[in-house]
Amino acid sequence: MAALIEWVPNISEGRRLDVVDACVEPLKSIEGVKLLDYSSDADHNRSVITCVGDPAGLKKASVALYEKAVELIDMNAQTGAHSRIGAVDVSPFIPIREASMADCTKLAKDCAAAVSDKFAVPVYLYRESATAPHRESQSIIRKGEYEGLTKKMEDPLWKPDYGPSKPHPTAGATIMGARPFLIAFNVNLDTTDVKIGKRIAKAVRGTSGGFVNVQGAGFFLEDNEEGPVTVTSYDELGAPLMEHGVFVRRDGMVQISMNFLNYLKTPIYRVLELIRREAQRYGVLVKQTELIGLAPADMFIKATRWYMQIDNLQGNQIIDFQI
Amino acid sequence: MAALIEWVPNISEGRRLDVVDACVEPLKSIEGVKLLDYSSDADHNRSVITCVGDPAGLKKASVALYEKAVELIDMNAQTGAHSRIGAVDVSPFIPIREASMADCTKLAKDCAAAVSDKFAVPVYLYRESATAPHRESQSIIRKGEYEGLTKKMEDPLWKPDYGPSKPHPTAGATIMGARPFLIAFNVNLDTTDVKIGKRIAKAVRGTSGGFVNVQGAGFFLEDNEEGPVTVTSYDELGAPLMEHGVFVRRDGMVQISMNFLNYLKTPIYRVLELIRREAQRYGVLVKQTELIGLAPADMFIKATRWYMQIDNLQGNQIIDFQI
Repeated sequence: MAALIEWVPNISEGRRLDVVDACVEPLKSIEGVKLLDYSSDADHNRSVITCVGDPAGLKKASVALYEKAVELIDMNAQTGAHSRIGAVDVSPFIPIREASMADCTKLAKDCAAAVSDKFAVPVYLYRESATAPHRESQSIIRKGEYEGLTKKMEDPLWKPDYGPSKPHPTAGATIMGARPFLIAFNVNLDTTDVKIGKRIAKAVRGTSGGFVNVQGAGFFLEDNEEGPVTVTSYDELGAPLMEHGVFVRRDGMVQISMNFLNYLKTPIYRVLELIRREAQRYGVLVKQTELIGLAPADMFIKATRWYMQIDNLQGNQIIDFQI
Repeated sequence: MAALIEWVPNISEGRRLDVVDACVEPLKSIEGVKLLDYSSDADHNRSVITCVGDPAGLKKASVALYEKAVELIDMNAQTGAHSRIGAVDVSPFIPIREASMADCTKLAKDCAAAVSDKFAVPVYLYRESATAPHRESQSIIRKGEYEGLTKKMEDPLWKPDYGPSKPHPTAGATIMGARPFLIAFNVNLDTTDVKIGKRIAKAVRGTSGGFVNVQGAGFFLEDNEEGPVTVTSYDELGAPLMEHGVFVRRDGMVQISMNFLNYLKTPIYRVLELIRREAQRYGVLVKQTELIGLAPADMFIKATRWYMQIDNLQGNQIIDFQI
């Protein structure tokens, strides 16, 4: 079974849908790559593209996307609610199966070398591929945005990892790197007391003393407010951390809505078990949970291994993965 | 994603390995089919072949296997510890992914029609494809074995579902049908008191009042008896029910060794939770569990859905299955 990597580039265009289509078009016919989804947000003036594929295919796809985006998006004329530094703003590579974080960093570096070489776009490596601690967060790299980039890049601390030390005149700069799969997971509590949800969210999220890699907040789910709602979470610096996500509201309950930024290091089941224990302390039970969007099969296999104590489980025991 | 079905034919030859190889050889080059494994048992004089594939490929593969087995195996000269009625004795089709039990029954009937037509081998449909309740169990169909087949087939109750009403002169008859994936799963208890393991096995297995679709027995795992051991389980009629399986012994503990004949109807997690509760009644904890051999990813996804209460989980949320 071949390596499978997810690639979720964000481009700084969410209004001119003909431009978005032109950027996405070449991704539909690259061998070894499958375009899963793309969606645009006019307020943010940004589009999120989701592909999966093998390393060779994704390298071709990234060159093809940057070529179109550099040609068609002029950052000097771009405005929107979402902070950004370039035409292709951020380009994360995410291990799904038979691929390690190191494999994704290697791919990010290959793509960074190709893109900076062909299009003279400077590249910052971030997250698991960052070359210094101050470059790990995309929101810190992005601080000052496209407009502040020329000045920022004069600082040796912000010399790009690849490409020229000044922004591309229309495409700015770009951020690339490996990161874990982001999982959006909600827990619905059988109570109408939102204080309980807010207290538990505070207990489990990283910013207030809980688990690293967990963001969370408690909400009361109003009557008649069913249906999917698009939400974006913000980190301490106010930058959106969730690249895409929705949650489904349930009537008359309290929901703890969470993002798991690294389910490999901070497993969802461990946090869920603590939430169950905390809820019990208030005489409340977990009514149901919700996985929002996609998750790798690996998450289910590791959760089952933990709950069922299957200590010696090997990946090659999953018949689906033998093919 | 295409339908994925497992096919585990058992042939009545486990001694002449050149004959086994000749039967298996054509299965290596059929489009849409992957040969995962085959193994022979000289005492049983029987070989178990494991393939996965799509319906069209598996139909071609079954015709190819029956052609070779009918040509090379003469049941009049065949002896062994394992009961059998034909050259290809039993040929189960097992849904893995994107395939229902009904899809597997359709495939079994297609193969039965082709094989009976081309090679004049009578076919009994069994398990989920059986045409009458008395034909569900392979051990009942097989009762009387090859030697008793001519007489048995004179009884209208035992008219084959496909093909002539008398055995093939050298290949006998064959059993085909859909069945759920068989999962071998062991639970190791942190005790040296084998009575506790035997009592719990008795409480959970179907033959003594527990769950249908569960076979089980308690063992004491002796010191220095580590390593894989091949075991075969027998049903009430003494016929082997486990088509293949091993278990790994752990020193100085008590093991409940189980077969789950239908994890879709009798989930492993439910039985494990009862075992944990029963063990607690004796002041004992589950130390670890063991999945033996293969299981479908579907089992892990359903276990996680249950343990984590992910009520609305959809198969298309598993990113691996989008491709």
